[in-house]
Amino acid sequence: MTTTNLILMQAAVAASAASGVLEAGKKKIDLFGMLIIAFAAALGGGSIRDILLDRTVFWVRDQDFLFIALGSGLFTFFLARWTRVSRQAFLIPDAAGLALFTVAGTNVALSLSAPWFVASFMGVITGVMGGVLRDVLCNEEPVVFRGTLYATVSWVGALVMIILMRNGLDAVYAAAITGIGIFVMRMAAIRWDINLPVFRFKG
Amino acid sequence: MTTTNLILMQAAVAASAASGVLEAGKKKIDLFGMLIIAFAAALGGGSIRDILLDRTVFWVRDQDFLFIALGSGLFTFFLARWTRVSRQAFLIPDAAGLALFTVAGTNVALSLSAPWFVASFMGVITGVMGGVLRDVLCNEEPVVFRGTLYATVSWVGALVMIILMRNGLDAVYAAAITGIGIFVMRMAAIRWDINLPVFRFKG
Amino acid sequence: MTTTNLILMQAAVAASAASGVLEAGKKKIDLFGMLIIAFAAALGGGSIRDILLDRTVFWVRDQDFLFIALGSGLFTFFLARWTRVSRQAFLIPDAAGLALFTVAGTNVALSLSAPWFVASFMGVITGVMGGVLRDVLCNEEPVVFRGTLYATVSWVGALVMIILMRNGLDAVYAAAITGIGIFVMRMAAIRWDINLPVFRFKG
Repeated sequence: MTTTNLILMQAAVAASAASGVLEAGKKKIDLFGMLIIAFAAALGGGSIRDILLDRTVFWVRDQDFLFIALGSGLFTFFLARWTRVSRQAFLIPDAAGLALFTVAGTNVALSLSAPWFVASFMGVITGVMGGVLRDVLCNEEPVVFRGTLYATVSWVGALVMIILMRNGLDAVYAAAITGIGIFVMRMAAIRWDINLPVFRFKG
Repeated sequence: MTTTNLILMQAAVAASAASGVLEAGKKKIDLFGMLIIAFAAALGGGSIRDILLDRTVFWVRDQDFLFIALGSGLFTFFLARWTRVSRQAFLIPDAAGLALFTVAGTNVALSLSAPWFVASFMGVITGVMGGVLRDVLCNEEPVVFRGTLYATVSWVGALVMIILMRNGLDAVYAAAITGIGIFVMRMAAIRWDINLPVFRFKG
Repeated sequence: MTTTNLILMQAAVAASAASGVLEAGKKKIDLFGMLIIAFAAALGGGSIRDILLDRTVFWVRDQDFLFIALGSGLFTFFLARWTRVSRQAFLIPDAAGLALFTVAGTNVALSLSAPWFVASFMGVITGVMGGVLRDVLCNEEPVVFRGTLYATVSWVGALVMIILMRNGLDAVYAAAITGIGIFVMRMAAIRWDINLPVFRFKG
């Protein structure tokens, strides 16, 4: 893994583990269950990406990721016990995880010379699936289906990143631009409740 | 992949993507969410088969499958917006997907010289799992558990296909016979509400 | 696979298939659906372990496991039709499966020279995930989240086993000691309703 991808993945794992603890902490779940949910949020998307790409799962190869998830989960736990956290607080680390994982997922797929459409998909899967697992384990409707722009933002970001890199932009800059773009677009979608239109079939 | 398998898989992907859009269109799900569900229905079963068999997932190797799923999903969407579709309309492409995926899944497993019982299982998993993912994402009880013959039909079909091929029948004919057989049996099971007996334990 | 692991896995598969049939038998699920749930319970955890470790899934390589799951499922079915079984009876084979799969999962990961923290995780995943799949398919809250010690017991067991083996104890003895320990601790947790504390965040 390149240094860029390593740093992106580590930051994404830390952010997503925090989102897992913050969501689980609103439920009647014990500390160990909370950590399982943090691990699922932090490792789920990247694991599915690695399995689909038929490579060794990133945290099996490098167990530092497990310690990062554990450390971030415990830190968030003690912080949240100390202060007041709103029911929606988890959406902020969740948006950070979405942005970081999308960028890292796309980048890894490209570096394995996956075709561009597959690479954009890998970005979305890496970005979205950890949160889906977290929400399913917490018995909540997955954020990705709650209406405000989510997977759309991730997919547009992945496509923009691929276009930037195809046009010769360095991976570090492309990752920074699209990562920040996804995070800002996602926070804007939450703030102003931006939706795609819903179509229901007659009959 | 042989030509037979390629055509079977492409047809199965197109049919299952249509079933995903038709089911999602009855729910309050936006267009992008609808396409995610179409992709899950179209790619889920074959992906799980490939992961279990430890081969590169079919749509990662050949991104045409992604375009087929996207095209079929969009086509179904515009068709369904135009006409009236009954709530149960998705069961027809679903049955086609079940038949095509069972045959393709069994065939792929046999061509990798998996043992026969494993191959029949791979047929069922490929046939059934896309629909399970679709129904779980739509928050519906999976069709496979709704009572009318479903996985049973798929498994019997897979076993018949293996027997036909062991007795020297060409793969193309064996696939055609079992594929049509599964589709007809499944439609008959829906039409006349054919069930396996249900046993509940006392106590 | 070493003989120890083979025997552990076969016993775990048999016990978990029985737990699947006993849980499914309380629901309105037909015989074939019941067997699917038995297979999910029996094969789920080990499959996820093998996929994460990027090795061929154990029952694809050796279809005896499928026959063991089928035989155990059918045997349990006829036994349970004959006698009265309490609603919670499945917790006993479930505890046996948890113990056996944890030990086997840890052992397999160590034998592939996975790092120790990863190996303990593989033990928990192998031990827990079959039951999670079973409960999700039965539309029940997963046992692992029901409060009494479950994943905790599995993880402590995996860690103790790793420590014992690092200190030179033979794998057979280490497996026997931790396997029995996990089973006894889990039954005690059910009997006396032992929980980890639950923390909910304010706000």
